[in-house]
Amino acid sequence: MSEFHSKIKTIEWHKTNQGGYSVMVDQTKIPYAYEKVEIKTLNSMYDAIKTMIVRGAPAIGIAGAHGCALFALELLSKYAPTEDLWQNNKTSANENLDENQKKSFFEELEEGLNYLNSSRPTAVNLSWAIGEQKKVIENSKTLTLKEVCANLINNAIRLENEDIEINKKIGDHGATIIPKGAGILTHCNAGALATVAYGTALGVVRSAFAKDNTIQVYADETRPRGQGAKITTFELVQDGIPTTLITDGMCSYFMRNKMIDVVVVGADRIAANGDTANKIGTSTVAIAAKYYNIPFYVAAPKSTIDLTIESGNDIIIELRDEEEVTMVNGKRICAEGVKIINPSFDVTDNALIAGIITEDGIFKPQELKSKLHKD
Amino acid sequence: MSEFHSKIKTIEWHKTNQGGYSVMVDQTKIPYAYEKVEIKTLNSMYDAIKTMIVRGAPAIGIAGAHGCALFALELLSKYAPTEDLWQNNKTSANENLDENQKKSFFEELEEGLNYLNSSRPTAVNLSWAIGEQKKVIENSKTLTLKEVCANLINNAIRLENEDIEINKKIGDHGATIIPKGAGILTHCNAGALATVAYGTALGVVRSAFAKDNTIQVYADETRPRGQGAKITTFELVQDGIPTTLITDGMCSYFMRNKMIDVVVVGADRIAANGDTANKIGTSTVAIAAKYYNIPFYVAAPKSTIDLTIESGNDIIIELRDEEEVTMVNGKRICAEGVKIINPSFDVTDNALIAGIITEDGIFKPQELKSKLHKD
Repeated sequence: MSEFHSKIKTIEWHKTNQGGYSVMVDQTKIPYAYEKVEIKTLNSMYDAIKTMIVRGAPAIGIAGAHGCALFALELLSKYAPTEDLWQNNKTSANENLDENQKKSFFEELEEGLNYLNSSRPTAVNLSWAIGEQKKVIENSKTLTLKEVCANLINNAIRLENEDIEINKKIGDHGATIIPKGAGILTHCNAGALATVAYGTALGVVRSAFAKDNTIQVYADETRPRGQGAKITTFELVQDGIPTTLITDGMCSYFMRNKMIDVVVVGADRIAANGDTANKIGTSTVAIAAKYYNIPFYVAAPKSTIDLTIESGNDIIIELRDEEEVTMVNGKRICAEGVKIINPSFDVTDNALIAGIITEDGIFKPQELKSKLHKD
Repeated sequence: MSEFHSKIKTIEWHKTNQGGYSVMVDQTKIPYAYEKVEIKTLNSMYDAIKTMIVRGAPAIGIAGAHGCALFALELLSKYAPTEDLWQNNKTSANENLDENQKKSFFEELEEGLNYLNSSRPTAVNLSWAIGEQKKVIENSKTLTLKEVCANLINNAIRLENEDIEINKKIGDHGATIIPKGAGILTHCNAGALATVAYGTALGVVRSAFAKDNTIQVYADETRPRGQGAKITTFELVQDGIPTTLITDGMCSYFMRNKMIDVVVVGADRIAANGDTANKIGTSTVAIAAKYYNIPFYVAAPKSTIDLTIESGNDIIIELRDEEEVTMVNGKRICAEGVKIINPSFDVTDNALIAGIITEDGIFKPQELKSKLHKD
C-alpha cells in the first residue's frame, strides 16, 4: 500500500463526554484559507452539505453519517439528557422511558434522517451512509438511547476510517493503469477534500506519484463553482505534485497535442450499467477523450455504485442557483436578462468509460452487475 | 436580405479634415459599459488589438486596415503635414519630396504595417486586411503621399462596409440550416462585436431569428476571458433574442438532453482542408456535437480562409497571459504554485464540421480548395 499521504483530513468526528460533534474543513474558503468548522446539529449539517462547506460524494456520505449521530444526540438531550455518553450505558438513570417515548425518539430520528438525505439529490453516498446508520438503528431498537447514540457515533467513525482505507486501495489499483510519466487529466475535485482523506481520483494520482514522480496533472477549472481551480490545485500543490490548471474548454487542445495520456475522475452515482453521474462537464471530457483514444477512468468506492438504478437516465440531476454561473468573486460576469440553467452534474455514457476503479479492483462498466459483490 | 439589425457598430472610421481616426467599442468594458474609444496612432492600435479592446477576427481585420491608414497619416504629418487631406490632393504645396524621402515614407510604412501584423498571430483576417492595404500602397506609389493616405482611408471604409454586407449574406445563407424553433449553441462571440456589425455566427442567429422568433441561443461562457458570458449575452439580450448562458463544460449535458439542435461558431483561421482555428474550447464543443450527431457549422467570411495553409497543424496558436486563467474579477481563483498554459485558440478537425457558411454559400470543408474562388 502506498506510503504517500496527503496532510488533509477533511471530516472527522470529535469525541467528547457528551458524544461529540463533526469537525470539517470549510471548503468554501479553499484555497484562501484552510479552516475547520464544528457542526453540532442536524440543521447545521443540512446547511453545510447544501452550501457545500462539505462536498465530494464520499465526504458527503461521511457528513451524512455524522449528521445521523448528531441528530440522535440532539434527541437524546431532549428525551434523556446525559452527562457522559460513554459511561454506564446500560444503567443510565435518566432512561426511564416508556415505550411511547422510545417510539417517538425513533420516529423523530427517522424523520430527521430523511430530511438530511434531501440536502443533495445526486450523490448516492449520502443516502448510502444514512442507510448504514439506519441499519445500526434497526439493530439497536432494544438498547438504551445512549447506546443507540454511541453505536451511531462508533459506526460513523468506522465509516471514516473505512473511507481512508478504501481510497488507498482505489489509489493502488488505479496506479496500475497510469503510464510512466503520464499526463493525467482530472475534472472537479475527487481528492482528499472530497473524501475523508487521500481521495479517489486524486488517490490514484497520489499512489501513481509515489511510484513515479514524473507524472503531471492537468486540472480542469470546473466552472461554475471552480472546484478544480480552487480545491484540486490546493491539494496537489500542497503535496508537491506538478499541476497545470486549464479551463474546461481546453481539454481537446491538450489531448490533441498529446499532453494527456489518461483521464481519471470521481463519481457521484454510478448506475448498474456503468453510466456515471459526476460533476457537470465530466461527460464533455469523456467524449473528447474517446475522440482522441485516451482512456477515461472513473475512481469511486463501491458505495457510489447504485445497482438499483438501471442507467444514467434515471439519475436525478441537481439544479443549483443561477448565481453560481452569473457571479464570480462577487461580480456579475454576464448581461442582465440572460437565462441560466445550472445542472450540477452530468451523465457519462458507459461506452465512454475504460474502467471503474474501486477498492475491489478495476471493472468494465458492463461487469459491475455480475462481478460486484456489495456487502 | 434580412431586415433584422443589431444596433451595434463595433468599429468605424471617423473622417476629419486631416484624415480622421478609428472609433471602436471598448470591448473590455462589455457588458458593464458600452463606451467608444478613439484610436489615433499605430501604437495605440497595436495595443488595442493586443489587449483586446477590439477582438473577433473580422473586427481585428478592420482594425488592421484602420491601423495602416493611421500610420500613413502619422508619417504624412512627419513628411508632408497637411491642413486638409481631402482638398487639392494632386497639388499639395507641401509635397515637394525627393525620391529618397518618398522611399523612406514607404519603407517606414511597410515596417509599421508588419509591426501591426504581429499584434495577434492566429486570426488571418488581420494579415488579410493589412495585405489589402498593401495592395493599395503598391498601386499608389506614383501618387502624392496625401493621396496614398486618402486611398488607405477609403479602402478601410470600403472594407468596413463590405464586412457588414458579407455578414448579412453569411446570415442569410446560414439561416437556411437552422431548424424551426432550434436550440443553437455558440461558443465565444462571433457577433456584431466581433465584426463591424451584424456578426458571423450571430449573423446567422440574427437572420434565423428574423424568420423564426422561437429559436433559442445557448451561449458558452468561454473561459478564460468569458467573451460568451460578457459579449454574446450583451448582444443577444439587446436584440431580444432568448439566450441561455452555460458554462463551457455543460455542452454535453444540453446536447444529451436534446436542447441543442445545431452549433454555429465563428473562425479565426480556416486552413485549405477546412480545419478551423477558433477560440479555445471550440473543438471540445465540436467533438461533443459529433458524438450526439448534432451538426456543427463554422460561419466566417472568405477572408478567414487561408488557402496557403494546408491543415490546422500549421496554424500558429497564440499563448496568452497566465492571469487570464488565474484571475477573475480581480481575485485569484486557484492555489499559488500551479502551472498555467493558456492557448487562446484550438483547431477543430474538418471531419467535425458539417459546413462552412460564407458570403458565397455553405461549403463542405473538403470543397474549399476547389470551389472557393477568392478575388
